[in-house]
Amino acid sequence: MKGMMMHRPLKIADLITFAAETYPTGEIVSVRTEGDIHRTTYRETSRRIAQLAHGLKELGIRPGDRVATLAWNGYRHFELYYAISGIGAICHTINPRLSAEQMIYIVNHADDRVLFVDVTFLPIVEKLRPHLPKDLRVVVMTDQTHMPETSLDGVQCYEDILDGKPEEIEWPDFPEEQAAGLCYTSGTTGNPKGTLFSQRSTVLHAYSLCVTIPKTLCEGTRILPFVPLFHVNAWGLPYAAPLSGASLIFPGGALDGKSLFGLMDREKVFSAWGVPTVWFALMKEITENGRLPDGLKDIVVGGSAAPQSLIEAFEEKGINVCHAWGMTEMSPLGTQCNLPEHLEDLSFEERIARKRSQGRRVFGVDMKIVDEKGARLPHDGKTPGHLYVRGNTVTSGYFEDPEASKSVFDDEGWFFTGDIAAIDQDGFLIITDRSKDLIKSGGEWISSLDLENIVMSHPDVANCAVIAVSDPKWDERPLLIVQAGADEKPASQDLLDLLAEKFAKWQLPDNVVFVDALPLTATGKVSKLTLRKQLAEDAE
Amino acid sequence: MKGMMMHRPLKIADLITFAAETYPTGEIVSVRTEGDIHRTTYRETSRRIAQLAHGLKELGIRPGDRVATLAWNGYRHFELYYAISGIGAICHTINPRLSAEQMIYIVNHADDRVLFVDVTFLPIVEKLRPHLPKDLRVVVMTDQTHMPETSLDGVQCYEDILDGKPEEIEWPDFPEEQAAGLCYTSGTTGNPKGTLFSQRSTVLHAYSLCVTIPKTLCEGTRILPFVPLFHVNAWGLPYAAPLSGASLIFPGGALDGKSLFGLMDREKVFSAWGVPTVWFALMKEITENGRLPDGLKDIVVGGSAAPQSLIEAFEEKGINVCHAWGMTEMSPLGTQCNLPEHLEDLSFEERIARKRSQGRRVFGVDMKIVDEKGARLPHDGKTPGHLYVRGNTVTSGYFEDPEASKSVFDDEGWFFTGDIAAIDQDGFLIITDRSKDLIKSGGEWISSLDLENIVMSHPDVANCAVIAVSDPKWDERPLLIVQAGADEKPASQDLLDLLAEKFAKWQLPDNVVFVDALPLTATGKVSKLTLRKQLAEDAE
Repeated sequence: MKGMMMHRPLKIADLITFAAETYPTGEIVSVRTEGDIHRTTYRETSRRIAQLAHGLKELGIRPGDRVATLAWNGYRHFELYYAISGIGAICHTINPRLSAEQMIYIVNHADDRVLFVDVTFLPIVEKLRPHLPKDLRVVVMTDQTHMPETSLDGVQCYEDILDGKPEEIEWPDFPEEQAAGLCYTSGTTGNPKGTLFSQRSTVLHAYSLCVTIPKTLCEGTRILPFVPLFHVNAWGLPYAAPLSGASLIFPGGALDGKSLFGLMDREKVFSAWGVPTVWFALMKEITENGRLPDGLKDIVVGGSAAPQSLIEAFEEKGINVCHAWGMTEMSPLGTQCNLPEHLEDLSFEERIARKRSQGRRVFGVDMKIVDEKGARLPHDGKTPGHLYVRGNTVTSGYFEDPEASKSVFDDEGWFFTGDIAAIDQDGFLIITDRSKDLIKSGGEWISSLDLENIVMSHPDVANCAVIAVSDPKWDERPLLIVQAGADEKPASQDLLDLLAEKFAKWQLPDNVVFVDALPLTATGKVSKLTLRKQLAEDAE
Repeated sequence: MKGMMMHRPLKIADLITFAAETYPTGEIVSVRTEGDIHRTTYRETSRRIAQLAHGLKELGIRPGDRVATLAWNGYRHFELYYAISGIGAICHTINPRLSAEQMIYIVNHADDRVLFVDVTFLPIVEKLRPHLPKDLRVVVMTDQTHMPETSLDGVQCYEDILDGKPEEIEWPDFPEEQAAGLCYTSGTTGNPKGTLFSQRSTVLHAYSLCVTIPKTLCEGTRILPFVPLFHVNAWGLPYAAPLSGASLIFPGGALDGKSLFGLMDREKVFSAWGVPTVWFALMKEITENGRLPDGLKDIVVGGSAAPQSLIEAFEEKGINVCHAWGMTEMSPLGTQCNLPEHLEDLSFEERIARKRSQGRRVFGVDMKIVDEKGARLPHDGKTPGHLYVRGNTVTSGYFEDPEASKSVFDDEGWFFTGDIAAIDQDGFLIITDRSKDLIKSGGEWISSLDLENIVMSHPDVANCAVIAVSDPKWDERPLLIVQAGADEKPASQDLLDLLAEKFAKWQLPDNVVFVDALPLTATGKVSKLTLRKQLAEDAE
């Protein structure tokens, strides 16, 4: 028997309409490419989004069309999110740090109709233009005064598209399964793969995010995402903030420690979100200033596992560290590691140890860990297995890539994360490694992640990676690769001694290699793929 | 183009599974009919819910069957909510304060298969038995030790149904539109009408509730609903609490001021939810004790409009009053009146004035106000109109009652609330009256609600109502009916003088009538229907 309740499609546009009506004075503050700080409200933003939507329709954009963005975190990028999906089209955010080859692949694969680009990234587009679809239109995200010289033909100006358009719009209805967003992962093998978010998955993800970290996402808090809007929708914050009434502070391209510290300080940012590498830069700035940015109480760390030293450094200063885990294919949030009340009496050490884990799942994401045969393993906190997930915010396949989609689902339809993890009795997820980054030595597993975590705690280590190298006797052995800090290069033996405090002798790396800079992926993680390649080349 | 994300049905059972895994130590504390206090956790409760679900299946309950409850707020009632809907059946909560006639009507209309009843209400069932469906099975919600004597045949014991059943269950999947709950409103005319909630509407309502009042609904808070589980699912709290990680304190049948104060004090209740009449009783207890219950910081007042004197009394003591508005047909939450940050600098008087309004809408509930012809009216805070609502948590028609369903939707499919309201520029809903309670004098409207609000602020008034009486010259004129407080009867002229400070002369009641007790509806509101009937009878 069916219930007798209305069925309204879950729609992204309803989030901004809601914010405009309910939190009209909620702020969006942006560092602009124009060089100044721009301030607006949800009420004003919803009017500009309506204008932009009218403009997109005039450009010929129809439901299902892909519209690409190549831009920093700012209010215009935010407006595009809502206007594009509002009319039923698909917002395709492009990571400007991708290689030219990858970028050409995805713009053609997505068959983008229009590309919205920040002034900063226009040179990239100029260079790639010959390889992009012929009928792709380019819009520069600025006003007429700031339009740059360009070699491109027919480039349009963002503000011209809005100019004179009505500030009201009747958003169309469509099924909530309608596609709304597209985000490619650079991946470690083959071509980038696209996750195609729906209106439904996006709204449900926003709900889950708000319900999961209610003390961060509530009316009146000020949140700065330095995680980019092109990095899985800045973890869903552009949708969750209007839903909760939180204000948004967008840093634009000013992502160095000094600029971020200054912006956070002036704007009284309560919570900031980003990847560990930027948090390390900020911690350096905090140390130099001898104080925290004014108002900062909470940080969300994700994108890659938060090293213990980072969690400690912030928690010692009274900042709540929310260690989060997810994947592009999961919208992205899977788990978060704020501590429950019954664990609040833990000692500082125990607290940090807990916070190193990925934390507890959000509502709507089911998790299972299984052995090699697919049999479920107990949630005892000790038994690691392959982690699979399921839920409304999880991908059901890659965009126009049946080949890549084939290998990532099990017989029950669960998504294979590629992580090895245990789950404890309190529901905490403990990721021990990526399956492909695990080192299998003499039939036993060694966690590269655990080794890296310890090495990162050494004051003279800026970054590091542990990878497997072939070994005739043990099959694989760990190799430690270190990027030293600015001041001093640590001694190899010191690092091995540090590891020896925690690991068995057979688990220790056989070798330590120093490099000037570790290769990073487009999202700022160490590229073990590149490292392995380099190593193979060196060996030849 | 459809997104490529998994489609999992939104299911109520997933809420308790989530709580058991994520907030395993979250508490459910209940005052039992057995006379003691019972303590359990979400983890333990989910095991008992699994047992109960197995038991229900053994009783022959199938998806779509209605299973009725006639019970106080307690853990067994909570278990029934989840076990019944978990197997795809429909939890039909019956208000024990309904008249015998109404109760017979709804049990037969709903065609309930099983009736779960608290020991307290067994005499009601014994009396009604001959008029209830022949094959209706009756289960008494207690253990063998406490089974009462009864004249009924074949009565079963709740704990026997759970006994020995497996503590695990694989919850079945079904479409998220599956019916899950049934709640009848006594209404003012005709037979009671049933709202049939779905799995989807219930889960989305839980999400909205959590997102709307995140400081109340978050992990570790302790919430006491004295709003009954038979009163629109205690406003959705049994679903929102497990989602947010809040603990639940159930008061059972001990709903007098003294018992509630004691329970709240001992259990360190952070937030309590209920109707104004009980809040008045609690305020009396607070005054007598000279202090608040320990830990109380927040109250939610709904069911009928919160009088200004009530809001003032609690806010003066530093308690946040969240004035909420909704309807059974809306699951029920429509709006809530926590104040936004930009209004936090208001003077106490301005703050109270704001809090008298119904507040801002929750995400997912759209509102419009229209004139007699259905044309939309501006949101200027001054222009009142007929209030219509729309959303996933709003009814699309009454259960097996096409006749009653006909008159409550407009051409666009919006639900007619029966309220007259304005909406201001900050999104605040200001209900001026029920359309049928408005007094139309000389072509002008007089708000009975506004008059009542002022009269309620007089210290010697316990309760009051303003109704329309026919008038040959003015069509209708207001009549004030007052129930005096315990100590002294206020002078009529004092009350009229009080009103004259705020209202025009023509708006003042022509007459004041004192009664010993105002008639109340089954949900504790003043029954103007009964008042009008009595008045008509008196006039004959």
